[in-house]
Amino acid sequence: MKILGIDPGLRVTGFGVLEKHGNRLQYVTSGVIRSGDGTLPERLKVIFEGISELVGLHRPDQAAVEKVFVNVNPQSTLLLGQARGAALCALSVGGLPVFEYTALQLKLAVVGYGRARKEQVQEMVTRLLSLSGTPSTDAADALGVAICHAHSGEILSTVSGLAPTLAAKGLRVRRGRLVG
Amino acid sequence: MKILGIDPGLRVTGFGVLEKHGNRLQYVTSGVIRSGDGTLPERLKVIFEGISELVGLHRPDQAAVEKVFVNVNPQSTLLLGQARGAALCALSVGGLPVFEYTALQLKLAVVGYGRARKEQVQEMVTRLLSLSGTPSTDAADALGVAICHAHSGEILSTVSGLAPTLAAKGLRVRRGRLVG
Repeated sequence: MKILGIDPGLRVTGFGVLEKHGNRLQYVTSGVIRSGDGTLPERLKVIFEGISELVGLHRPDQAAVEKVFVNVNPQSTLLLGQARGAALCALSVGGLPVFEYTALQLKLAVVGYGRARKEQVQEMVTRLLSLSGTPSTDAADALGVAICHAHSGEILSTVSGLAPTLAAKGLRVRRGRLVG
Repeated sequence: MKILGIDPGLRVTGFGVLEKHGNRLQYVTSGVIRSGDGTLPERLKVIFEGISELVGLHRPDQAAVEKVFVNVNPQSTLLLGQARGAALCALSVGGLPVFEYTALQLKLAVVGYGRARKEQVQEMVTRLLSLSGTPSTDAADALGVAICHAHSGEILSTVSGLAPTLAAKGLRVRRGRLVG
């Protein structure tokens, strides 16, 4: 099964594609879509077309999207909502079933610790997918939400959901830290 | 010039198409897109595809969209933002230049009074476009924002922007009320 993870944002939208073979996760690609300096409709178009292109190119079976924080600033919430609308639209128009996860679910699934920092998510994503380099925070979040979805059949909100993947690498998590 | 007006909403999106010939505005069509009871991505898809269909069918030259209120409820703002993102996306992907107007601008342009009620917008839209029936509030708002855009070359934020169209019908506005 091929999963496309998306971390939507008005300025930068992260994406990550991975394949799930049984318990094994295989990295396919990741990166960011930068929406540029155009007007709002133009930027939303860049997000929509960027994601549509990914869907056409990689033909994922399912999509996983990070739920956004409702910002204290209503104007920021509105802007982020619009970017998210463009992203969800592209996935739905592309025929993908879309699954949504909160940042908490993502962190629990990837780091095993709900209050994990961005860098911890980056580090764990790098390890779990045996990447040679560290992805950017936006790409790591997108890969993270794809990993989260890959594990969602298991017990998501506990570290045990992650255990088989980690064990296969001779790793485990203790108090939100990875121990070898 | 053909103008497509859109009043985006997650549940109901109003639309209205009109043609501008000099100072004369001619009604083409109006209505609503109901997004149904599906998941959020499915509903956004309905909005996107509904607007894309309108663009393909009527081939408007420009689009006018109502700016949304930032709601006191952040969750509502996020939902509305997502609906708006899908709508703007469809217009932009459809190749239309998009112009945005606040509810205040719309009311000033259509009713000549910034604090006009929904029913006043409906009534004025009906009169200005010589409609045989009254459009729904969502469709009236969409037609209203299209009218607002049609007048935007003139002095938008005063009643005088509306004056030529009204005068052609033997009408004028006094204190937000239409006088024959």
